[in-house]
Amino acid sequence: MRSIALLLVAVAAVAGVIVLTASASGNTNGEAAPVFGIKTFPGYRDWRLISVAHEEGNLIFLRAILGNDVAIKAYRLGKLPFPDGTVIARLAWTYVPSEENNKVFGRHQSFVAGSPTNVQFMVKDSKKYASTGGWGFAQFKNGKPDEKADLKTCFPCHEPIKARDFVFTRYAP
Amino acid sequence: MRSIALLLVAVAAVAGVIVLTASASGNTNGEAAPVFGIKTFPGYRDWRLISVAHEEGNLIFLRAILGNDVAIKAYRLGKLPFPDGTVIARLAWTYVPSEENNKVFGRHQSFVAGSPTNVQFMVKDSKKYASTGGWGFAQFKNGKPDEKADLKTCFPCHEPIKARDFVFTRYAP
Repeated sequence: MRSIALLLVAVAAVAGVIVLTASASGNTNGEAAPVFGIKTFPGYRDWRLISVAHEEGNLIFLRAILGNDVAIKAYRLGKLPFPDGTVIARLAWTYVPSEENNKVFGRHQSFVAGSPTNVQFMVKDSKKYASTGGWGFAQFKNGKPDEKADLKTCFPCHEPIKARDFVFTRYAP
Repeated sequence: MRSIALLLVAVAAVAGVIVLTASASGNTNGEAAPVFGIKTFPGYRDWRLISVAHEEGNLIFLRAILGNDVAIKAYRLGKLPFPDGTVIARLAWTYVPSEENNKVFGRHQSFVAGSPTNVQFMVKDSKKYASTGGWGFAQFKNGKPDEKADLKTCFPCHEPIKARDFVFTRYAP
């Protein structure tokens, strides 16, 4: 019976690993972005949706904001501050009129996601990033740290929204 | 040894059920929408993101298109037609200027998701919905079939995009 029990534990462990891998937010590969030393999160494209947005002005793009499991749980509970381990990903694509869609609608009204621009992360670690409200910031382009991103400007922009733990995006039900 | 093997199968089956439940797309509760008889999918808000869009004209809103596991797999493989079991969900929210964001950007440029409007589903079942390209269509509002939705108009609108198996949305990487 002991060997059966051990085998069961082994199988359960393997099953657990598979589950964890499927929703992985592993942050161990690749090069770290400067200032906060954050590496990209290989599983982020599988994270759940927090909300969507559209920016005009100099930054014309469509955005999706995704969250890891810690982030989604915190958003749905509606409790602030976000706990350590929260990661919020901001994906963005160029804002492209869709001729296919417009043809069907019979007028110029449809805009869709074009090519991806960059991906930004906010990572909560209240000790490590104590001087910036507990948040670290990173920006990646094609999976590599974006050299052009001035990550020192991230926190000053997020400071006005201190009442919501420095996070602009609200959960879209 | 036979009892060990059986136990292993049992444990693996339980683990499988847990995995399936975690990403559930159960379609067993609630009232069915007319014409195609589709019930809502209680787990859809946890599905993964296919893409985002913005509609102007009479339909000013922000959209997110999510897919169940079958849909996401098919999109990533890039193989058409979509297999039976594919479900694509179109979520939409009112298109709201964000004063909070604009204050930080220093100009009127930011639009975010407001209140949810309705949720539409496309469900692939090549036998059941053979007369409409293998797709069934449904629309829900606050979790209930939307009485105002004329589901007979769905397929004629999707017909022009037959070359992509009647699905407009492309995967946003």
